[in-house]
Amino acid sequence: MAVQTVATTSNSTVDLGPAAALSCRECGHRVPLGPVFACEECFGPLEIAYDFSAYDTEELRARIEAGPANIWRYAPLLPVPADVAEKPNINPGWTKLVKADNLAGELGVTGGLYIKDDSGNPTHSFKDRVVAQALEAARAFGFTTLSCSSTGNLAGAVGAAAARAGFRSCVFIPHDLEQGKVVMAAVYGGELVGIQGNYDDVNRFCSELIGDPAGEGWGFVNVNLRPYYAEGSKTLAYEICEQLGWRLPDQIVVPIASGSQLTKIDKGLQELIKLGLVEDRPYKIFGAQAEGCSPVSAAFKAGHDVVRPQKPNTIAKSLAIGNPADGPYVLDIARRTGGAVEDVTDPEVVDAIKLLARTEGIFAETAGGVTVGVTRKLIENGVLDPALTTVVLNTGDGLKTLDAVAGTGLTATIRPNLESFREAGLA
Amino acid sequence: MAVQTVATTSNSTVDLGPAAALSCRECGHRVPLGPVFACEECFGPLEIAYDFSAYDTEELRARIEAGPANIWRYAPLLPVPADVAEKPNINPGWTKLVKADNLAGELGVTGGLYIKDDSGNPTHSFKDRVVAQALEAARAFGFTTLSCSSTGNLAGAVGAAAARAGFRSCVFIPHDLEQGKVVMAAVYGGELVGIQGNYDDVNRFCSELIGDPAGEGWGFVNVNLRPYYAEGSKTLAYEICEQLGWRLPDQIVVPIASGSQLTKIDKGLQELIKLGLVEDRPYKIFGAQAEGCSPVSAAFKAGHDVVRPQKPNTIAKSLAIGNPADGPYVLDIARRTGGAVEDVTDPEVVDAIKLLARTEGIFAETAGGVTVGVTRKLIENGVLDPALTTVVLNTGDGLKTLDAVAGTGLTATIRPNLESFREAGLA
Ligand SMILES: Cc1ncc(COP(=O)(O)O)c(C=O)c1O
Ligand SMILES: Cc1ncc(COP(=O)(O)O)c(C=O)c1O
Ligand SMILES: [Zn+2]
Ligand SMILES: [Zn+2]
Repeated sequence: MAVQTVATTSNSTVDLGPAAALSCRECGHRVPLGPVFACEECFGPLEIAYDFSAYDTEELRARIEAGPANIWRYAPLLPVPADVAEKPNINPGWTKLVKADNLAGELGVTGGLYIKDDSGNPTHSFKDRVVAQALEAARAFGFTTLSCSSTGNLAGAVGAAAARAGFRSCVFIPHDLEQGKVVMAAVYGGELVGIQGNYDDVNRFCSELIGDPAGEGWGFVNVNLRPYYAEGSKTLAYEICEQLGWRLPDQIVVPIASGSQLTKIDKGLQELIKLGLVEDRPYKIFGAQAEGCSPVSAAFKAGHDVVRPQKPNTIAKSLAIGNPADGPYVLDIARRTGGAVEDVTDPEVVDAIKLLARTEGIFAETAGGVTVGVTRKLIENGVLDPALTTVVLNTGDGLKTLDAVAGTGLTATIRPNLESFREAGLA
Repeated sequence: MAVQTVATTSNSTVDLGPAAALSCRECGHRVPLGPVFACEECFGPLEIAYDFSAYDTEELRARIEAGPANIWRYAPLLPVPADVAEKPNINPGWTKLVKADNLAGELGVTGGLYIKDDSGNPTHSFKDRVVAQALEAARAFGFTTLSCSSTGNLAGAVGAAAARAGFRSCVFIPHDLEQGKVVMAAVYGGELVGIQGNYDDVNRFCSELIGDPAGEGWGFVNVNLRPYYAEGSKTLAYEICEQLGWRLPDQIVVPIASGSQLTKIDKGLQELIKLGLVEDRPYKIFGAQAEGCSPVSAAFKAGHDVVRPQKPNTIAKSLAIGNPADGPYVLDIARRTGGAVEDVTDPEVVDAIKLLARTEGIFAETAGGVTVGVTRKLIENGVLDPALTTVVLNTGDGLKTLDAVAGTGLTATIRPNLESFREAGLA
């Protein structure tokens, strides 16, 4: 894999707000902000290092609360310029935290159950959050094409954000995705390239392209802009705590594809604690996978520190990453916080989608079926404590994975009269 | 048509906040609040009459601004109890008002162009607003089944709201709707009945059912609860003005099916003026239809006061009401405000969907294609003034009408290597 370590533009002019540098998650080596993602010393992943030292807790809280009803209310904690809310961006976030009392009743949760419903984002998945960050980085580094490898949701989010911000886009997806995701990725008018292979093949190809002259001037949101991109998931942690009244939840259930989201939710919670915005109490993070692509769950259960790649085969295509880059960090976080990683079968995913719809009126994509299904399983197994406050993420929208519930449809067909109504046994 | 004029429960216990009575739009005859929709004197439509006399303008404004980020911030202006935000409801509204500078550039609008993007609602259409109101009325009147006739979006909104609020639901749709709308209506677990006929047949059947013992205890959100239901569309007017900084837009472009939404947007603007929440200045309301179902547009152009029913034939199925109940009021409002009613062809609808996606990253359903297409046409014809502030409604989500843009898809398919990438001419 070609590792690009030199920024394409000078960093001295880069204003990404409180972001101070990139720092290696493995060895701590620091480099200036730029479109790089791997440490030149040890090949570890680079993360954003911030300078938050000037913040007064209560001033910061007031500033956040007075901010816009989207992720930019947290601009002081993100790698974006202070005037980010004025730029053309799709402004995701501040999605509903739904108190799910009916679902709690069915699952026996007594400590308060919430769905963080990210289907309310502009392109109806949490990917709008990460793309919104990557877009600002792409702008700062002078890129003109926005690109990515995607299992579907990311493609739509990149297409939409690029359209609005005036970037060219060229997006790579496995050629056999759900129709809803393909159309949603294509409708914004960018290039949409189907790759004959699975997501891991697509991802490998993108890394090749970055090392090639053909990829010059391209910001791959989840490759060379990955450190910025990944920070977008922190906003889920911020919003959940603010919506709970600046309080940490006891337990969070998060879906895992690459593991980036889970890792950054933990980072976000840690930041809130350090900034004094929430009280420092224990919380547990649970990871959720589909059985047909459960490399992290398998490693967790086997007590391994490394993740053995799998060949995905599940209806939860948005989570079908067989070789998850952040797998080891997920294992570490689940163990450190006292959480777990679990998986459910495809039929359990479908059941969970219907359960959530029937109880709360929320139509989740398969990824949401995975988290709700895993929550149920963890309660049944006594791993998740039903007496504690629990937040379950729904990161995508049922309209994008209609095939999963295609068996659902008309319960009767009648002619437009009362006789036919009675004949159908509906009266 | 059977007209139910007697409430099923006593009105004396009904608390619907500032709603004081029902009043006939035609003759002014007043009746107590109840599940009735037609005047016993003249068969005219009943509307909610309010008592707003106790409100102080600046107190009211502050109360609204401190309210929740959904339609319940306007509870003091709606037929709902004061504690409505505490009840299980899907809490729609407070959707984005997107400054659409790219689209404005393409259309030559210089006075400020905005998309009110109601695809951000829980079931991704403006119907969540009206159903949320009807649900509170159903609760107040002691109904246990929530029902409706629907062109698709309403079915999903009723299914979701009923699920969350613990109502049974039974929804009637034309049997040949888009798959996305059928699945979304079914997934919440209620009864979903396909009717062999078009929307107007479905609607006639529901009126029959209300007059039959089989329909007892049923709240048909858009029939016997219609006066309450319809008020939900006022919240679009409230939000647009508040999001513009408590200012009326100069021009609004609204889609027309039954015409209810357009009528109530006008009512909402009038209320804001009377309450002193916005300055009293002229505004123009424009109605938008698809050519294949354009009875109101045809009447407007012909200078008629009445609307001649049509047999719908358009891809804009959510607007395919050939016999629009509020057609005459729409004509009246368009003429009184100096607006117009216009229609566009199906290919123009598709073009407009793509135009909005390409310029603003917003993927609208066909109804949004209709409003954007009509806006373009009205500018070209010199009817809509590009120098004035203009708000265009997108009332639904592209994911529900994928067929309309089904031609959109992969721009290339390649093998996962650079050679194949170059062969495809992508480098
Ligand atoms: C809907 C949805 N949820 C969750 C994820 C998981 O993201 P991550 O790769 O950060 O683990 C994805 C990734 O594509 C997704 O599309
Ligand atoms: C997406 C969408 N927009 C607009 C309308 C128009 O509503 P009305 O019947 O109030 O004119 C509908 C009605 O079904 C709809 O589904
Ligand atoms: Zn390192
Ligand atoms: Zn009357």
